[in-house]
Amino acid sequence: MERVRITYRLAVDANRIERRADELALEQTVELSRACLRDPRIEREIVGRVEAIEPDPEEAGFLVTVGYPLEITALDPAQLLGVAFGNASLQRDVALVDLDPPDRLLEALGGPRFGIEGLRAATGVRGRPLTCAALKPMGLSPDALAARCRAIARGGVDVIKDDHGLADHPFCPFEARVRSCAEAIERVADATGRRAVYAANLVGTPSALRERLRIAEDIGAGAVVVAPMIVGLPAFHELVSLASVPVVAHPALAGGSAIRPTLLVGGLFRLYGADAVVFPHAGGRFPDWDAGRCRDLADRLRRPTGSVRPALPVPAGGMGIERVAGMVEFYGSDAMLLVGGTLYRADGLEARTRTFVERVGEAAIRASGAAS
Amino acid sequence: MERVRITYRLAVDANRIERRADELALEQTVELSRACLRDPRIEREIVGRVEAIEPDPEEAGFLVTVGYPLEITALDPAQLLGVAFGNASLQRDVALVDLDPPDRLLEALGGPRFGIEGLRAATGVRGRPLTCAALKPMGLSPDALAARCRAIARGGVDVIKDDHGLADHPFCPFEARVRSCAEAIERVADATGRRAVYAANLVGTPSALRERLRIAEDIGAGAVVVAPMIVGLPAFHELVSLASVPVVAHPALAGGSAIRPTLLVGGLFRLYGADAVVFPHAGGRFPDWDAGRCRDLADRLRRPTGSVRPALPVPAGGMGIERVAGMVEFYGSDAMLLVGGTLYRADGLEARTRTFVERVGEAAIRASGAAS
Repeated sequence: MERVRITYRLAVDANRIERRADELALEQTVELSRACLRDPRIEREIVGRVEAIEPDPEEAGFLVTVGYPLEITALDPAQLLGVAFGNASLQRDVALVDLDPPDRLLEALGGPRFGIEGLRAATGVRGRPLTCAALKPMGLSPDALAARCRAIARGGVDVIKDDHGLADHPFCPFEARVRSCAEAIERVADATGRRAVYAANLVGTPSALRERLRIAEDIGAGAVVVAPMIVGLPAFHELVSLASVPVVAHPALAGGSAIRPTLLVGGLFRLYGADAVVFPHAGGRFPDWDAGRCRDLADRLRRPTGSVRPALPVPAGGMGIERVAGMVEFYGSDAMLLVGGTLYRADGLEARTRTFVERVGEAAIRASGAAS
Repeated sequence: MERVRITYRLAVDANRIERRADELALEQTVELSRACLRDPRIEREIVGRVEAIEPDPEEAGFLVTVGYPLEITALDPAQLLGVAFGNASLQRDVALVDLDPPDRLLEALGGPRFGIEGLRAATGVRGRPLTCAALKPMGLSPDALAARCRAIARGGVDVIKDDHGLADHPFCPFEARVRSCAEAIERVADATGRRAVYAANLVGTPSALRERLRIAEDIGAGAVVVAPMIVGLPAFHELVSLASVPVVAHPALAGGSAIRPTLLVGGLFRLYGADAVVFPHAGGRFPDWDAGRCRDLADRLRRPTGSVRPALPVPAGGMGIERVAGMVEFYGSDAMLLVGGTLYRADGLEARTRTFVERVGEAAIRASGAAS
């Protein structure tokens, strides 16, 4: 029987762990005790099977792996979440640590349609990390954002992404913003011969997302940004299936969860179709995100996983230009460095962007020299 | 300026709290430091305003209220989540405690379309708590589930809800299941004159949800069950707007979050349109859910809130029939008691259901006697 293996951390004592693991496998499937179930076929074919119980090497408690019959997920992006952690999330002694999908589930969910290779093709960048700047702040008019877009594009960045707070605001409607910004980038491309990819932020209910995706694609945005935990992972998955451009996932609302961040942001975002995934780099304004977590996350986004394409890690979160060299060393070439607020520190957005881009290029040359 | 007031718990020292609160108000809006923002209009009209900082009465740390200009939410169910807790969720020192929407936001989100009154009208039940049984387990065929549905309906329960794990499975397709169960209930109604409301579980991507809602309504399901955190709150909100029957919210995946459960399950589920909200009652198999939390949650679901209808609390989670009297006393009449697995403890589902229903009736009579 094909199974999806899911690993939990259970904060319980050794003398209770076997029973607790069995309760978990029942809770996530039949929601019945064995005494109430009384059906050998269902026990065999439906109930999760506890496959491993090992002491957690990091703290008191156990890592428990449950193998669920693949059929119960219905190969459905929403149902999978319920099987993995639905009711268990309501119990404080459980955390969701990992998920190991069989090939058929990988194929059903599909993963990135562009991935690292597709983003390199879209930007024309080879042999070095991609560069990305965030367009902000919320509150500017379409024209004012377009002026900033123009300065950033002149600075030579590969991708210009909307802040994830840019919605369909009365003071800055979605369509007007995307049109102004895309045109600004186009004019710079006409002048310089170098066209940045504009990644328009999409936020809204599923029908609004579909409509805004269509508008962004029609206007010529080369990518879109979506926060999977704000729109919901199943809606994110559906949007990816509709998009003809790469989808960049933003981690908003993905923290503070009993789902381990490396699984959620590194594993599930990719599995559900993110071509690139933004996350806070260590040492910025998100102190939980230490170097070990960032390393795991980047590895997880890029490692070979059956038919699922690698996704591009996008470290961000308060990175200054002075940290570029260290980040290139840390992540290597297959990453996109995202610099946000620090580009805005004083007048001279274009010059600061250019410095950022140059530093990435220099660091990549040094790194490739060191590697050869 | 109309504002949505959001309260956070910040685990920081007194000497850092003012600065940290200001950083939070910036992070959730412009994602820029004041040094990089340099725009008095945006500081005034867009950035959140720290309105209160008070020591948390429960543990070390502070409760901080930030008033955000209503405009920045775009009155959008997805954008509101990002403003409330998007990036902040990635910082371990913050929890989301409360959200106080102004009338215009209440009206935009809409809340329940049926609420307690609508569910009473749909079931014809007045003057006592409603009764509900869960149809389970996943793994049965449509016919086998229908047989259980028939027994439960004969037992006289008001609402029969699918387990939230019942999806569109190869071994039990959605349409066949809903049709078999609805027909079983109909036949019992023909025989007894009493028709239970069948609440069909919907899970899937947004387009699958829409399609399954239509099928369930066409077949004659009297309600639907949806887990907002599995499908995503914005998709839940959209589904509510499309539904012509009451929507029961299930708490799967709503735990283990830095969003306080009373706000998420009690406040946001209602605001986003749940007519009834299932949650674990104290003393069952979800130990975190203690009496205080359940009290707060039920109060929150039912309290007058501008134009938003009260929603029906549905305590559940391993409640045995022997606890019915205590639960009627605890929640009063405006609740729906949900008994799940314990009805299946031995053969005799119909008889056990009847006992459950009778005990609720008796407890309600005692309670109304005590009150008068």
